Amino acid sequence: MAEFMDVHHDMRGITADQLRQAHQADLAIEGEEGVHFKQAWADPDSGVVYCLSEAPSAEAVQRIHERAGHKADEIHPVPLTV
Amino acid sequence: MAEFMDVHHDMRGITADQLRQAHQADLAIEGEEGVHFKQAWADPDSGVVYCLSEAPSAEAVQRIHERAGHKADEIHPVPLTV
Repeated sequence: MAEFMDVHHDMRGITADQLRQAHQADLAIEGEEGVHFKQAWADPDSGVVYCLSEAPSAEAVQRIHERAGHKADEIHPVPLTV
Repeated sequence: MAEFMDVHHDMRGITADQLRQAHQADLAIEGEEGVHFKQAWADPDSGVVYCLSEAPSAEAVQRIHERAGHKADEIHPVPLTV
């Protein structure tokens, strides 16, 4: 398992409820790909959302995000953490 | 205090030691601006580094990063977290 940070752009105006619902939609199906979405952070003004996950691959992360209705614009493995 | 996610590009090839040293350089002076750098994640292949902090402002985050020798390319407040 590796850690990934994925980024969504164009989420301007996202609310706390919408972020929670999007995260719940991921959590509901993440196990089918062996993914776990650990945390997400959103800036409603610029529309950027960051999601931190553990997953077998970036493709697995994207498959869950796509099925949940919010494809990521970037997905980076982040093997280094401090 | 608010949370911020800042992003550094062009850190290709960064090592675990370099990430740790950069983070330590931030921690050593962060108190002077009331900032706390909580965590950082790096992708040596694409060269992107994400830093999560608590701070009074994005400008305070940038002042610490600049003084520590690694100015951020983007700094986003992330008022929503899940």
